[in-house]
Amino acid sequence: MQMQASSLCLATKVTVRVKSQHTKPAKVRDLTSMAEVASPKWAQKTITLPPQRRGCHLITSKILKEIEQDLSGFKCGLAHLFLQHTSASLTINENYDSDVRDDTESFLNIIVPEGASATWKHTLEGPDDMPAHIKSSMFGSALMIPITNGKLNMGTWQGIWLCEHRDCATSRRVVITLNGI
Amino acid sequence: MQMQASSLCLATKVTVRVKSQHTKPAKVRDLTSMAEVASPKWAQKTITLPPQRRGCHLITSKILKEIEQDLSGFKCGLAHLFLQHTSASLTINENYDSDVRDDTESFLNIIVPEGASATWKHTLEGPDDMPAHIKSSMFGSALMIPITNGKLNMGTWQGIWLCEHRDCATSRRVVITLNGI
Amino acid sequence: MQMQASSLCLATKVTVRVKSQHTKPAKVRDLTSMAEVASPKWAQKTITLPPQRRGCHLITSKILKEIEQDLSGFKCGLAHLFLQHTSASLTINENYDSDVRDDTESFLNIIVPEGASATWKHTLEGPDDMPAHIKSSMFGSALMIPITNGKLNMGTWQGIWLCEHRDCATSRRVVITLNGI
Repeated sequence: MQMQASSLCLATKVTVRVKSQHTKPAKVRDLTSMAEVASPKWAQKTITLPPQRRGCHLITSKILKEIEQDLSGFKCGLAHLFLQHTSASLTINENYDSDVRDDTESFLNIIVPEGASATWKHTLEGPDDMPAHIKSSMFGSALMIPITNGKLNMGTWQGIWLCEHRDCATSRRVVITLNGI
Repeated sequence: MQMQASSLCLATKVTVRVKSQHTKPAKVRDLTSMAEVASPKWAQKTITLPPQRRGCHLITSKILKEIEQDLSGFKCGLAHLFLQHTSASLTINENYDSDVRDDTESFLNIIVPEGASATWKHTLEGPDDMPAHIKSSMFGSALMIPITNGKLNMGTWQGIWLCEHRDCATSRRVVITLNGI
Repeated sequence: MQMQASSLCLATKVTVRVKSQHTKPAKVRDLTSMAEVASPKWAQKTITLPPQRRGCHLITSKILKEIEQDLSGFKCGLAHLFLQHTSASLTINENYDSDVRDDTESFLNIIVPEGASATWKHTLEGPDDMPAHIKSSMFGSALMIPITNGKLNMGTWQGIWLCEHRDCATSRRVVITLNGI
């Protein structure tokens, strides 16, 4: 297996200098001390994505626009995206051909029965609600992406998708947490 | 896109004070030094959930009961839950109507063939075992949830589910790791 | 609910000692200062897994071989594995019987239509490409595993799987990030 060098970083280095100057044995000047610290950082913000139609949507640029300024301060770390909803999902998939997103939405509708073909007990919020909950657990509501040299370290063809599973579009909140050095 | 202010926090601040008192030039008292440190914290514990029947179960309160004391010490961070088993799963979904949990269990049984309709090679541990492994990878065995001001920062309708995929209920171990400042 | 003791650890302790030696009142030797720091650590590397045939593969030992040296330096932490591709996936499942991996591959092929039975719009990269993208989002492309006393804290029967969803085997890149104390 091919390996690339590991970068093992101590998150905190403390330099303490204590200097003393003496002009005369009878006098001792006050000591001065200085501490320099490079520390692990945490950043957290909640963003609201605008309402989008049912289906899979590429949101990489929208997310980057919100965090790239903070991201630039991290040499090494992790970025966590957490969707605060149970009828939509976050996933990482192909970032180029919109057909991939359309086909993925088609797949979800094929395997999760809806309407006449469904026998769900939970129907009070509409025929698309229970299928939306199931799709949310299938794809998940959170992502963790490595940060390397101030950028999200995704593959060439990877993008961040928001999958809206409800017919009635609503805004969606995402809690973004950055941690690293 | 609406944005809320980002809270960027330095995890460690070090204050070093070195003072010196001198009464006589001929004598120099021992120096005293003091360091004040506010640091990133890690907490990790393994809990055991009691046996529960096959199906989806809301366990938010059980998890909180185990960690809320530690949680209160974190202003900003992440909570990781890791299920140490391959025939059950953890997911985040609707926390109010138990019908949603029942319908989700029904869905899993519809799309993962079991018994006569199945053609699995792995059958030594019973007809429900191979389907349980598949369901475990579909929903996943781990969760990461943001911590904000001492609490899990989930949406209003989100809850933590343990999905038990075996017919024979057994206790389940969860490794919980908290990290933040 | 049975509980094990929580280990709450301060990630950084700073000890500063400043000592002074004096032989004569007329002379004051230079002061020496020393700072000992135990700090949170981050390690990140990108590994390349060799091409493997379509199907589910146990890669725990390959991953450990790459990180166990760094792992040994962490008493408590988290290990993140991130696959930089959209037509394969990472999951945690049974580590003993290869039939479980074969049956899981069979399941994926049963529920994701391919070839004649499929109606995908995205077909330029071959009949197995669109199904591969869907399978990637079903199982996911990332894992987070707790670190305890220098080891990945997985259950007895858990292993790390790489699921290759393409017919044409290619090498796969995984970004591994370790964080802890």
